[in-house]
Amino acid sequence: MKKSSGAKLPVYPTPVWVVGTYDNEGKPNMMTTSWGGVCSLTPPCVAVSLRKNTHTHGYIVKHKAFTINVPSEAHAREADYIGITSGRNLDKFAATGLTPVRSKLVDAPYVGEFPLNVECRLIQTVEIGQHTQFTGEIMDVMAEESVIGVDRDASVLGTEGIPDIEKVKPILYVPQVGTYHGIGRNLGRAHSIGKTIGGER
Amino acid sequence: MKKSSGAKLPVYPTPVWVVGTYDNEGKPNMMTTSWGGVCSLTPPCVAVSLRKNTHTHGYIVKHKAFTINVPSEAHAREADYIGITSGRNLDKFAATGLTPVRSKLVDAPYVGEFPLNVECRLIQTVEIGQHTQFTGEIMDVMAEESVIGVDRDASVLGTEGIPDIEKVKPILYVPQVGTYHGIGRNLGRAHSIGKTIGGER
Repeated sequence: MKKSSGAKLPVYPTPVWVVGTYDNEGKPNMMTTSWGGVCSLTPPCVAVSLRKNTHTHGYIVKHKAFTINVPSEAHAREADYIGITSGRNLDKFAATGLTPVRSKLVDAPYVGEFPLNVECRLIQTVEIGQHTQFTGEIMDVMAEESVIGVDRDASVLGTEGIPDIEKVKPILYVPQVGTYHGIGRNLGRAHSIGKTIGGER
Repeated sequence: MKKSSGAKLPVYPTPVWVVGTYDNEGKPNMMTTSWGGVCSLTPPCVAVSLRKNTHTHGYIVKHKAFTINVPSEAHAREADYIGITSGRNLDKFAATGLTPVRSKLVDAPYVGEFPLNVECRLIQTVEIGQHTQFTGEIMDVMAEESVIGVDRDASVLGTEGIPDIEKVKPILYVPQVGTYHGIGRNLGRAHSIGKTIGGER
């Protein structure tokens, strides 16, 4: 039986992403968000929503660029710290020991230690309630070499050079409950496992 | 060492969500997408991006409503099927044996068997490349009773009545690679595990 949870946010799953920007003086800054997702395939775009009172909000508007940095499970503590602190009086890179790396294609730094870094050029800004949704066109994705290479069938499947999610080990956030989770087992191949339903069943 | 993957979409993790709508004749329809995410907290909103040539695109425009249905691992095959078939000549509910349930608050059906159903009222439409991004204000979340109740500390933590992600067992999609994954282990409490970094370390 179904029960109403009310007009709240238990929409699962949501990602844990660290947004990298340069501040007004050009110093690297970062913040953690779970409010975002892919919003276009052609061109490849990703959107993140930030409250207007965050520093990162102003920095994205100024530099028209940001990075999405995907922390690995091993960085859960750092990702949490980046989310609960403010860059106003704190150098979050120095405090965490993480390394800002200048993106080649956009005016934003990425997090060197995180396995996946997505360089985005701001292409659209939309106001939604207390948040501003920033849409970034993905200009490049930098991946740590050790997480690249999906499986033995990569050359057959055309997945050479693509990061393996089981090596990236991204983190999920559970809204309201406030916990982080890792990713689990492979459930099968998309555009394939459903073929046995319907006509072929 | 970092390696460029190019301007593509290995942004992890992305969700597997089934979007429920009524068609032009009022018959229930659904499609699967991984292009979406939370985009506002106040009011609670979620966005999904659909190509203009999908049937669901027109149905959302017509009814100004949609549901986000979160399949459980047990429904991975159905979710895949819903993603690879078109509602043009097919009743996907009949084919999968899933049950459309009329939402109380919005003009869209939800999937009875999926553990989490999010009822959304369309509040904004944004064009991005070949996709249209539909922003829905969450009017209610329906959860299967068996997935509600997070842990023994629910009354202390204020999480009574909230679905437990470890019971919901939502599915992740890996762009480009084309695999589905489950969720994994609890990595700790948000706004907490990072406190040991910095001043307190």
